Amino acid sequence: MNAATLFQEILRKKSYLCVGLDTDLAKIPPHLLSEKDPIFEFNRQIIDATADFCVAYKPNIAFYECLGSKGWDSLARTAEYLPKDTFKIADAKRGDIGNTSTMYAKAFFEQMNFDAVTLSPYMGKDSISPFLAFPDKWAILLALTSNEGSKDFQNLRLQNGKQVFEEVLHTSQQWGSTDNLMYVVGATKAEALAAIRQLIPQHFLLVPGYGSQGGELAAVAKYGLNQQCGLLVNSSRGIIYADNTKDFAKTARKIAQSIAQEMQELGLYK
Amino acid sequence: MNAATLFQEILRKKSYLCVGLDTDLAKIPPHLLSEKDPIFEFNRQIIDATADFCVAYKPNIAFYECLGSKGWDSLARTAEYLPKDTFKIADAKRGDIGNTSTMYAKAFFEQMNFDAVTLSPYMGKDSISPFLAFPDKWAILLALTSNEGSKDFQNLRLQNGKQVFEEVLHTSQQWGSTDNLMYVVGATKAEALAAIRQLIPQHFLLVPGYGSQGGELAAVAKYGLNQQCGLLVNSSRGIIYADNTKDFAKTARKIAQSIAQEMQELGLYK
Repeated sequence: MNAATLFQEILRKKSYLCVGLDTDLAKIPPHLLSEKDPIFEFNRQIIDATADFCVAYKPNIAFYECLGSKGWDSLARTAEYLPKDTFKIADAKRGDIGNTSTMYAKAFFEQMNFDAVTLSPYMGKDSISPFLAFPDKWAILLALTSNEGSKDFQNLRLQNGKQVFEEVLHTSQQWGSTDNLMYVVGATKAEALAAIRQLIPQHFLLVPGYGSQGGELAAVAKYGLNQQCGLLVNSSRGIIYADNTKDFAKTARKIAQSIAQEMQELGLYK
Repeated sequence: MNAATLFQEILRKKSYLCVGLDTDLAKIPPHLLSEKDPIFEFNRQIIDATADFCVAYKPNIAFYECLGSKGWDSLARTAEYLPKDTFKIADAKRGDIGNTSTMYAKAFFEQMNFDAVTLSPYMGKDSISPFLAFPDKWAILLALTSNEGSKDFQNLRLQNGKQVFEEVLHTSQQWGSTDNLMYVVGATKAEALAAIRQLIPQHFLLVPGYGSQGGELAAVAKYGLNQQCGLLVNSSRGIIYADNTKDFAKTARKIAQSIAQEMQELGLYK
């Protein structure tokens, strides 16, 4: 999926919502635990309920990996189930030297059919390029994350005047295009989006932290939207764990719908 | 395993070699491909052959992950098979916000019995601390890696005069102790080890890139050794893929033995 197609999907669904599938056995409704694959069954119902109101899904790989090969099977089953017209993000935060990054890329792009993988930029160009070598696939680089620890290194000021995350944005742009490179920018830093939009006016931004981490949609839209939308705003817990009863999927649908409604009211692009 | 025990093992085996289990179906001897689990069978024979001459093993997780749940099973089987007296490193280069990092820690420390996980420092303290909360387990932070792309961000100069990787060393020391924090420093940067030893005189360093990536053991020993050894030097391809015949394990043993011999001659500590 390229950027133009993603934008078309956003216009068609009137939403740039990404639903985070941070699926945790300890948090899903208890009645699902008797299912053969409770994780997949939860995801399946969430996907069915929310697909009308979101353009992307983002399983966080840690939640599957901590269950060993069973979890990996649930992840593969989920990836396969995701609708073709949605943008499928493996939130893996990987990154290694060249030949090893190729192996990670194969895991998510060939073993499974994800469109994108989140990556840490720390090891530089040759840790990212192998992902960009896969046609129609995306690398989503961590730039400015929404957690407390983002201050430790991302916000440090370099001798050239830029902060580290700004240098990441500046340098990495040359590694790919607006059709295969996207950036993670935390929603708690909405004001920083204005400066980021100056640095990278065209790229899509993946904005986690909406809802549970305190991000506000109006500010994200104000500073983050561009002419082709340019935003994927993720909500995980706020949607998937809003209701712990047998009605969890219905509730998730209502919340996804209301976020999409808010997005539409704020405008889907600039 | 704490640092004192690791040092004891180094003295007992007269070696600070780490064998990297970057096990690739396309590279292992063809006669193993008819085994039920060729990856594990290869690892088992390599481990049996080299355990006398190394103190640590380091499977690179990408090589297992790219095979899906089957690969994950081979990894779990390998982790279980590793001798109790060896230091077991999951080379995973993970890192995520707090609750998610805890899930990754559970994957490697509870689902499997690794002693340590390699981590990217980009997201800061709260992405690393969850790993340090597990008693007797280690976080191994990427500091200065040996790949070409390490220059892109790790070597950038900050306004405080430090390079980014030096700031990582400086700041992160406060998050743990010499009993649960270790750092990755590429062997191709042996001269940089002198400066690094000034910053962190006591910590163990995991030095990859020996052999295939051009690192020289004498320089690494000269600049990297401290009073408790303080080094784990990793070799992967140079040991495990030296011989593609039925004698591959014998050959691996010989090479591991000769590296251990060289280590002993250079001195195991300062």
